[in-house]
Amino acid sequence: MRPVVVRNIRRAEAGAASRLAACGVSTVHEAMGRVGLMKSYMRPAWASPAVAGTAVTVLSHPGDNWMLHVAVEQCRPGDILVVGLTADSTDGMFGDLLATSLQARGVVGLIIDAGCRDVSSLREMGFPVWSRAISAKGTVKATLGSVNVPVVCAGALVTPGDVVVADEDGVVVVPAREAGAVATAAEARIANEDSKRARLASGELGLDMYAMREGLAKAGLIYVDNPEDA
Amino acid sequence: MRPVVVRNIRRAEAGAASRLAACGVSTVHEAMGRVGLMKSYMRPAWASPAVAGTAVTVLSHPGDNWMLHVAVEQCRPGDILVVGLTADSTDGMFGDLLATSLQARGVVGLIIDAGCRDVSSLREMGFPVWSRAISAKGTVKATLGSVNVPVVCAGALVTPGDVVVADEDGVVVVPAREAGAVATAAEARIANEDSKRARLASGELGLDMYAMREGLAKAGLIYVDNPEDA
Amino acid sequence: MRPVVVRNIRRAEAGAASRLAACGVSTVHEAMGRVGLMKSYMRPAWASPAVAGTAVTVLSHPGDNWMLHVAVEQCRPGDILVVGLTADSTDGMFGDLLATSLQARGVVGLIIDAGCRDVSSLREMGFPVWSRAISAKGTVKATLGSVNVPVVCAGALVTPGDVVVADEDGVVVVPAREAGAVATAAEARIANEDSKRARLASGELGLDMYAMREGLAKAGLIYVDNPEDA
Amino acid sequence: MRPVVVRNIRRAEAGAASRLAACGVSTVHEAMGRVGLMKSYMRPAWASPAVAGTAVTVLSHPGDNWMLHVAVEQCRPGDILVVGLTADSTDGMFGDLLATSLQARGVVGLIIDAGCRDVSSLREMGFPVWSRAISAKGTVKATLGSVNVPVVCAGALVTPGDVVVADEDGVVVVPAREAGAVATAAEARIANEDSKRARLASGELGLDMYAMREGLAKAGLIYVDNPEDA
Amino acid sequence: MRPVVVRNIRRAEAGAASRLAACGVSTVHEAMGRVGLMKSYMRPAWASPAVAGTAVTVLSHPGDNWMLHVAVEQCRPGDILVVGLTADSTDGMFGDLLATSLQARGVVGLIIDAGCRDVSSLREMGFPVWSRAISAKGTVKATLGSVNVPVVCAGALVTPGDVVVADEDGVVVVPAREAGAVATAAEARIANEDSKRARLASGELGLDMYAMREGLAKAGLIYVDNPEDA
Amino acid sequence: MRPVVVRNIRRAEAGAASRLAACGVSTVHEAMGRVGLMKSYMRPAWASPAVAGTAVTVLSHPGDNWMLHVAVEQCRPGDILVVGLTADSTDGMFGDLLATSLQARGVVGLIIDAGCRDVSSLREMGFPVWSRAISAKGTVKATLGSVNVPVVCAGALVTPGDVVVADEDGVVVVPAREAGAVATAAEARIANEDSKRARLASGELGLDMYAMREGLAKAGLIYVDNPEDA
Repeated sequence: MRPVVVRNIRRAEAGAASRLAACGVSTVHEAMGRVGLMKSYMRPAWASPAVAGTAVTVLSHPGDNWMLHVAVEQCRPGDILVVGLTADSTDGMFGDLLATSLQARGVVGLIIDAGCRDVSSLREMGFPVWSRAISAKGTVKATLGSVNVPVVCAGALVTPGDVVVADEDGVVVVPAREAGAVATAAEARIANEDSKRARLASGELGLDMYAMREGLAKAGLIYVDNPEDA
Repeated sequence: MRPVVVRNIRRAEAGAASRLAACGVSTVHEAMGRVGLMKSYMRPAWASPAVAGTAVTVLSHPGDNWMLHVAVEQCRPGDILVVGLTADSTDGMFGDLLATSLQARGVVGLIIDAGCRDVSSLREMGFPVWSRAISAKGTVKATLGSVNVPVVCAGALVTPGDVVVADEDGVVVVPAREAGAVATAAEARIANEDSKRARLASGELGLDMYAMREGLAKAGLIYVDNPEDA
Repeated sequence: MRPVVVRNIRRAEAGAASRLAACGVSTVHEAMGRVGLMKSYMRPAWASPAVAGTAVTVLSHPGDNWMLHVAVEQCRPGDILVVGLTADSTDGMFGDLLATSLQARGVVGLIIDAGCRDVSSLREMGFPVWSRAISAKGTVKATLGSVNVPVVCAGALVTPGDVVVADEDGVVVVPAREAGAVATAAEARIANEDSKRARLASGELGLDMYAMREGLAKAGLIYVDNPEDA
Repeated sequence: MRPVVVRNIRRAEAGAASRLAACGVSTVHEAMGRVGLMKSYMRPAWASPAVAGTAVTVLSHPGDNWMLHVAVEQCRPGDILVVGLTADSTDGMFGDLLATSLQARGVVGLIIDAGCRDVSSLREMGFPVWSRAISAKGTVKATLGSVNVPVVCAGALVTPGDVVVADEDGVVVVPAREAGAVATAAEARIANEDSKRARLASGELGLDMYAMREGLAKAGLIYVDNPEDA
Repeated sequence: MRPVVVRNIRRAEAGAASRLAACGVSTVHEAMGRVGLMKSYMRPAWASPAVAGTAVTVLSHPGDNWMLHVAVEQCRPGDILVVGLTADSTDGMFGDLLATSLQARGVVGLIIDAGCRDVSSLREMGFPVWSRAISAKGTVKATLGSVNVPVVCAGALVTPGDVVVADEDGVVVVPAREAGAVATAAEARIANEDSKRARLASGELGLDMYAMREGLAKAGLIYVDNPEDA
Repeated sequence: MRPVVVRNIRRAEAGAASRLAACGVSTVHEAMGRVGLMKSYMRPAWASPAVAGTAVTVLSHPGDNWMLHVAVEQCRPGDILVVGLTADSTDGMFGDLLATSLQARGVVGLIIDAGCRDVSSLREMGFPVWSRAISAKGTVKATLGSVNVPVVCAGALVTPGDVVVADEDGVVVVPAREAGAVATAAEARIANEDSKRARLASGELGLDMYAMREGLAKAGLIYVDNPEDA
């Protein structure tokens, strides 16, 4: 596999990302049939708002952020940078200088399966990052990787141009060609949940609203009064 | 072990829970003789206030939240829902719809040895959750568990009706019949600590206040001046 | 190795600590040649400001905080207490009473390779703590350790009198005799980064600013247009 | 909770343990309805044979093995010693001297939610141990715990007198009064599996033997030929 | 993403797998340019010989092995079954009955990003398994997944038909169309290493054999005699 | 900190290493007062015999084994190579070629706070390795570290020339100038344990042999008969 930078990737249709960000990761994940979720160790570096963007991908070696510098040039407004690694690492491969560069190009955030640093600066700049660790440990620039090849990031496959959605609940990947359909399905779920929420808030039980009682009895659930009271 | 829902459990006496919440988890844990603490991976999903409630317990299988829906009906105002699992999982088994339902019944919070999701909604609703992870990964409703049987949650045994106290320091379980006595012992510790705090703040050393010097010398502790200066 | 308390250690020169705190952990770590960083599991117990101080060190056994009480007496204003353990533990070895005592002596913070507790009190007091866990599990006072001997804390060697810097990015140790020189080097890096930041913010690419293109080509990086578009 | 040693516990009926050991942990766990399993981090310290015994339980504090010495006196031939801790630890709380003592009383093995040591001696003696770690770190004898109270060990509740079964697949706990019935159910599973194994070995598919095809189709599974070949 | 079984996948050329198995995982990984390696938590369940086979892939939900039964029918002699999950789990999703079925179809081994069980039976049968855990915890058959779609397993992307090589050093994935070329490159590395090994065994230093001294000096390495001896 | 190779280090006296290896890690650790133990995640890569040697130390960056090649030249017969890292990594930094080189110089083993590979070759060669992981992931040769400076390895400080002892129970570090005294103390412990072992094997209780009963009663331990029988 030769190191390569792929230019002019096909991105998901405009508009899908913002619709998906508004739905949130949990709802989008449900709407996709429960696939595409990154592992739950990916956490926001600061209390940033939810974001979604089209993925520019980087495959890096641990402890080396050379390819992140290369990737900046391939980014357009509305993109989100996604960094996968060839082996586990918590090194701080991303800091405020790279964030300045990405922000200058309109990138909405970073997803990195490694560490980040300069957290207080990132917060002040308003640049959102999801990472597996926070670490002051910097990196070298010695080994090539690739830009805009399919990468595995925190257990999820990301193809360049996919929409990546990130919020407090985690990070989910939506394939580019499904982005519009998933957004529509997610919005439908939200409308449906709003009405359910109102019924539950009024005291109606999920047992009744979802008509679960028959299924539970059939599966063998029994109710007993506290034996200690007997 | 057949799946079962136990109704009408015996709860700890009214009043004990609020007294214990005011004392805090660390003090309650000390007052109990240092038992009953859940593992330290249990963290608040958002910066919620301390809570305490009488436990309604759920035993669930990983990736399945069917029994949480069943448990809602067994909850009363002042209860806290405690969910143990039969195997490790970080799946997001609890979200804002279940929280709406629990809040409608007066439940004060959730303790779950798995993941939760919809964190921003939970914060807006003011519904406190302690969990081992945050994850957008939802669950199926396919396998029965039980409600109000003794469960192991994050390493601690919880019997239905026990008082469970949770704050920034963690989560502790107080057996129902000991709740009043533990609250009294915890309150005494706090009074005692207040006077100690004043003495320490004035500069008195713990070495002297606790009369440790003799014990240290007896155990063999020696003092030397910086060998490099010698 | 007999248990010992070393008095009158040699501390880094006055002024170095505050200069280093102003530079931040990531920059200081770079300025030292990327050594001296504690492991990334060390996190602030609350959103405290960055701190730096001269290290008073403690070697403790897990589950035993006797030596922390002994160490208080050896602290002076501007010190930071650093606690290494002989085996892994997440027990809450430090709480608000010890913090009161340290604060009364002018200690600027605590670094502990174990757990801490009373987090809400620590926040109210404004006493900064970096730890590997938060846990209500208290400790006994039964086994001697040492004070002001070299200790390994979270993977880093700390010699008494070293400057320890801690912020949101982690914790780094600066040998006492290098503290002034490292502060100077770190300040130079910051000046240099300020000018780079301005250039990157204006849209100049790091690829050009750092003159990376030739090196990348020499290492074998190729650029291709998206094959799917071909 | 006062420290206590409970004497003369009620043990599961004789014979159940050996029947359960012969069935193995995985089969016993299935026969119980998939409850009672310790966490999968519990591993044999050496390649010992499967064992089962009636549980004598110990609740210890981390780094302190005083109560293990106390527990020896309460053991009878056919017992298995089970040690739960009040907080996570990997310290080596058990070594060859304690093993010699237990072996002299006819104890069949040790299950400990902490570390063990002297592994090569344990192998030579033929004394089986399941633990969460191997560590040379010894312990003090300073804090009381209890013997023969219910304990949580590696996530499972163990009541004194329960049968504990351990083999290469892990460790499972069978409540004393269910031990005979579980052994019978487990033996039935094995007989059933033997016939299934013969059919599968002959090439019959599980899809057909378990009559899964209809259920899969109903759940929505579709079959397609490789699109790339189209 | 609808649940689907893809039939008649394209497999890597015959012969490549056995050549790659003979080279071993570490050499194959080097020969591929250091990509395609599964995470190092994947370990052999018993001391099995190295294996390589063409991948039949399964995407499963945690705690559910329904799709493994489905996958058996799609396997041919020389295949290796690779199971990825939608979320982390250590449940024992694979045991001796499934192994019997796979062995009857000529499958050479199993790679599963979850737990396995019946380890002693697997050893007796001679069926090799690499897994992230060993656990007696069985599974349900309730939720559909897919067979022969691209999956992420232990951090590596596996496309159906790829060659998967596993030995004591770990598990590596070789894309089907590169399998022959990678085998050739790996065999060349081995020939090269054999001659190097002979030179190193005779006492020649790697520093000289690899001509490293100039590069080290240029990078700034200095040699000093022990200052303590000065 | 400039990269440096220190030549002609002072090694512990001849003979101490072999005496310490005969005592074993657990006994040596006790004899030193329970300090100097590496973390319990350090495990033998294969079932090698116990070893002890004088430490030649390496400080490396993760994913880079350049300095291991440099270190070979500094090794003498009876040495053991100890590798510490500046950040966590599981990369396989050591394989059979380096082992061949070390074996040719009479080095007795390797201790590395990272991964190793070529495990089956290491076993065949009879070269012992203790590591935190096994991983086929190789490394680059790009960044300088140092040889024969004090390093932190798996949480323990190792100074060049120290004796490092490794067996199934873990790895312990004995300072060079204490090696003879520690060996004498460890041998005394073993003699003492032999007589204790004989008494325990004859059925004498540790409670009596160690005269613990009074201390237990004084600490408050009570004995009760099974409450259920009461």
